[in-house]
Amino acid sequence: MLNDIEIAQAAEVWPIEKIAEKIGLTKEEWAPYGWDKAKLSLGSEHDSDTLGKLILVTSINPTPAGEGKSTVTVGLGDALSKIDPKTMIALREPSLGPVMGMKGGATGGGYSQVVPMADINLHFTGDFHALTSAHNTLAALIDNSIYQGNPLNIDPRRVLWKRALDVNDRALRHTTIGLGSPTSGVPREDGFDIIVASELMAILTLSNDLMDMKQRIEKIVIADTYEREPVTVGDLGVAGALTTLLKDAIHPNLVQTLAHTPTLIHGGPFANIAQGTNSIQATKTALRLANYTVTEAGFGADLGGEKFLDFKVPLLGKAPDTIVIVATVRALKMHGGLAKTELTQTNLAALENGLANLGQHLQSMQRYGVPVVVAINQFTNDAPEELSAIQAYTAKFDVPAYVSDVWGQGGAGATDLAQGVIEATERPAAFKALYAPEDAALEKLNKIAQTIYGAENVELSDKAQRQLKRFAKYGWDKLPIIMAKTQYSLSDDAKKLGAPKNFTIHVREFVPKLGAGFLVAMTGSILTMPGLPKHPAADEITIDKDGTISGLF
Amino acid sequence: MLNDIEIAQAAEVWPIEKIAEKIGLTKEEWAPYGWDKAKLSLGSEHDSDTLGKLILVTSINPTPAGEGKSTVTVGLGDALSKIDPKTMIALREPSLGPVMGMKGGATGGGYSQVVPMADINLHFTGDFHALTSAHNTLAALIDNSIYQGNPLNIDPRRVLWKRALDVNDRALRHTTIGLGSPTSGVPREDGFDIIVASELMAILTLSNDLMDMKQRIEKIVIADTYEREPVTVGDLGVAGALTTLLKDAIHPNLVQTLAHTPTLIHGGPFANIAQGTNSIQATKTALRLANYTVTEAGFGADLGGEKFLDFKVPLLGKAPDTIVIVATVRALKMHGGLAKTELTQTNLAALENGLANLGQHLQSMQRYGVPVVVAINQFTNDAPEELSAIQAYTAKFDVPAYVSDVWGQGGAGATDLAQGVIEATERPAAFKALYAPEDAALEKLNKIAQTIYGAENVELSDKAQRQLKRFAKYGWDKLPIIMAKTQYSLSDDAKKLGAPKNFTIHVREFVPKLGAGFLVAMTGSILTMPGLPKHPAADEITIDKDGTISGLF
Repeated sequence: MLNDIEIAQAAEVWPIEKIAEKIGLTKEEWAPYGWDKAKLSLGSEHDSDTLGKLILVTSINPTPAGEGKSTVTVGLGDALSKIDPKTMIALREPSLGPVMGMKGGATGGGYSQVVPMADINLHFTGDFHALTSAHNTLAALIDNSIYQGNPLNIDPRRVLWKRALDVNDRALRHTTIGLGSPTSGVPREDGFDIIVASELMAILTLSNDLMDMKQRIEKIVIADTYEREPVTVGDLGVAGALTTLLKDAIHPNLVQTLAHTPTLIHGGPFANIAQGTNSIQATKTALRLANYTVTEAGFGADLGGEKFLDFKVPLLGKAPDTIVIVATVRALKMHGGLAKTELTQTNLAALENGLANLGQHLQSMQRYGVPVVVAINQFTNDAPEELSAIQAYTAKFDVPAYVSDVWGQGGAGATDLAQGVIEATERPAAFKALYAPEDAALEKLNKIAQTIYGAENVELSDKAQRQLKRFAKYGWDKLPIIMAKTQYSLSDDAKKLGAPKNFTIHVREFVPKLGAGFLVAMTGSILTMPGLPKHPAADEITIDKDGTISGLF
Repeated sequence: MLNDIEIAQAAEVWPIEKIAEKIGLTKEEWAPYGWDKAKLSLGSEHDSDTLGKLILVTSINPTPAGEGKSTVTVGLGDALSKIDPKTMIALREPSLGPVMGMKGGATGGGYSQVVPMADINLHFTGDFHALTSAHNTLAALIDNSIYQGNPLNIDPRRVLWKRALDVNDRALRHTTIGLGSPTSGVPREDGFDIIVASELMAILTLSNDLMDMKQRIEKIVIADTYEREPVTVGDLGVAGALTTLLKDAIHPNLVQTLAHTPTLIHGGPFANIAQGTNSIQATKTALRLANYTVTEAGFGADLGGEKFLDFKVPLLGKAPDTIVIVATVRALKMHGGLAKTELTQTNLAALENGLANLGQHLQSMQRYGVPVVVAINQFTNDAPEELSAIQAYTAKFDVPAYVSDVWGQGGAGATDLAQGVIEATERPAAFKALYAPEDAALEKLNKIAQTIYGAENVELSDKAQRQLKRFAKYGWDKLPIIMAKTQYSLSDDAKKLGAPKNFTIHVREFVPKLGAGFLVAMTGSILTMPGLPKHPAADEITIDKDGTISGLF
């Protein structure tokens, strides 16, 4: 059996020009990056409000068993494309750091992949590198300002803007900088995040255009003064240079699936400390060009799904017409208590036990007033009675569940799912927001925790309470909430699988992101710079004299 | 009067497809990056030894007055192109860090520019970002190996591979990393270089193909063991992954001048701690496709020029057919003792005084047995008698000097120069190497210092002497020498302008670069991470809603 990269390498990839023509673009509206990738910048004649149907793919809480959310997204897109050729997919860009570590890419798998797979997983069109450049240029400008007489009165102990790389590098989590000599800066503590955690990444994916991006960048809070007043990029006066560095990165990237379904891949903010979905621009572009747009949100429905619905929808001005929740027999059995090594055995009891996780997500997604369907991503060892058990369970919620084999069959493995999704999008729907913008922070938090997670309540640490008081001074306490929570559990404890009950969500502290326009609520400790495993993927990746890559996954 | 970026923005830029056709490429031999940039990968049918004429542009020692070497290179290329359309230019890529600081770009100036100017000076086709990625991935893999049980027995105090960014960031020169907790790595001292100082940059520009690059990467010495034995990338086993990250960066980039002369821009190693010229692949590609190839080397003839002739020529398998030395009245007057504020006044005495700097370079370049011509890059305030004085001086060396106005007139301002260069390339020449590969390190050093710089002798520090003894054990003492010396003086003291006499070159230490295949001889202190000035260029750079950039220079 071929592995992912071998399938991708064997594929017939159309010239990107043909894909651009397929979606009706003129030559002024796109630019090539190689023969198989492009960047789009749509002319204003596309600024219409006639938008196609939007399908949001989300999932149960991820487990080490793998759910294949991206693979289902691509397979569903291909299946819809066969029914209506005016179908597009909108995905996030993979981050290179994890690719060199151990993560599978974000380009799907098997016969439901986006190509050129290797390029997309490596440097792609350079968006993340442009962000890294802008991020670290800003960091250098801040330290330079402190060094050159500190006209903004920045307290070097309270610089909030860390540095960033697209590398998994635990040794850079905590550093000291400015050492060596008086001409080598001002010594202070610092650290590096992975670039997907950068506020610039969140901003890029939220901006409608260059000027919107520039205004957002101006608002980023980079430090406190000695008097503890916020200092912004606008105060430093370098938003223009940073926007200039992001002038190309702001445009969505066009590629194709193995079945030549046009796919926009753009931006990749974390789904815990940021909104976790691809860019507003890419989603909107797809909605304008296609009758059906399939997109996904990071992690489970409690993180990426909630953020898409509560944070992205108001900015996008368009709610999903259907929400697809991806589940697998394997993952549900893990939620039901099995270890990863026990998943090949049929075990209805464990499955029934784990279904509560799916149930919580079904309920929480249904409350938004949008039709929900379940996609069961089939694996080889799934027993027919296990698949039926899931279908019987979702039927109780009046939700259809479709068994799909997208890895092995591509779009052909998702025909029923696609048909079900089309039917769902035609059902009457009325999007209902979870909270109102004017709700107090604690009220927003409680609505998210109780309705989405099934928690009892939310507890704020002393620090978090003090912060909210201070933030009220600047109006930051009314910002939309972005929850930073483990993706593995509905609770804030990664070990509580299934659907935990009677738990409290503990908010340790808030991180205001003024440029992105949200307030991050930190629960537990969220690593913003991953490390590499003992045997990193980089050990296996190589390339031969003809440029053929192996070991990428 | 329009400034550089305004001239560039007003230019009619041909689709890069037209430039690719002009040099006879098939569609398999190039790939677009936007409509105005491309990457080339020539098929093997071009692997012929029939090479065109090579013209190397170098200069006197640079001064704050500016010499305009890149501008002359572009203007000369355009002038030659008018005479023979089969002319190409081969340049280095600009580094983004200095662009945000204060440096003018490496794309020429006025009406002798390469376009798209802003793109080339910003991210271009992502080569430097790919290098930064590979560089820091290697750094993370080294620290991860130390953290995960240290199987290679690396002494954390003797890790030689620093981290790198394409940002001018003095605060990163000296850092400590691995702090915070036992799960955040092993604490140690570290630092960042600017990416152009990375050995990967030198390797990229020296590699003939992917496999050559991979083998070179394997040889990089990254650390010492506790027993002080060298540890290489090959020992770590990750050369394949790093080569994969550089799979596109290895291909030369094609752009055009304002006059549509095809121009390859590829790689940008420092001209002090590395070889300081564009890639072997780009130069060779141009030589195969064109009758005339104009290229330049970094800094003055004592640094970039010497390295081109002694280090690059053997690898390229082709010596220049003519060497052009760029000089200006203004710079020569600074070498003659004037301050930057005094340069607008005619001052023959100062000029005569400064001509000794040009004289030393004329002599040193002539000894290679290649015809030499001088290009006087004319500025507005140059007096006719000053221009004639230079011509009279070079005539004593039997070298013609041509007055050129490439900034104001483009190629039309270099017609005489181009004609003179063509004549020079037709003169009989026999390239004579300065030293033999088997010469001892001190012998090589003395030949460079005495013949090229006009020094009395070379002195090795105790450390440098000890190092040579140790290196003999591994055969590293016989590597070609790359001098790391100030660019401002022929000596190792930046303040000694003109043509100093009776001086000694002090070699402080050696840095072996096994992947690049040279031994760096460090004289004085060479900064490998620049800082930003009090008023960085980034303060002025901005972009408007239509994407028009201003303040780039």
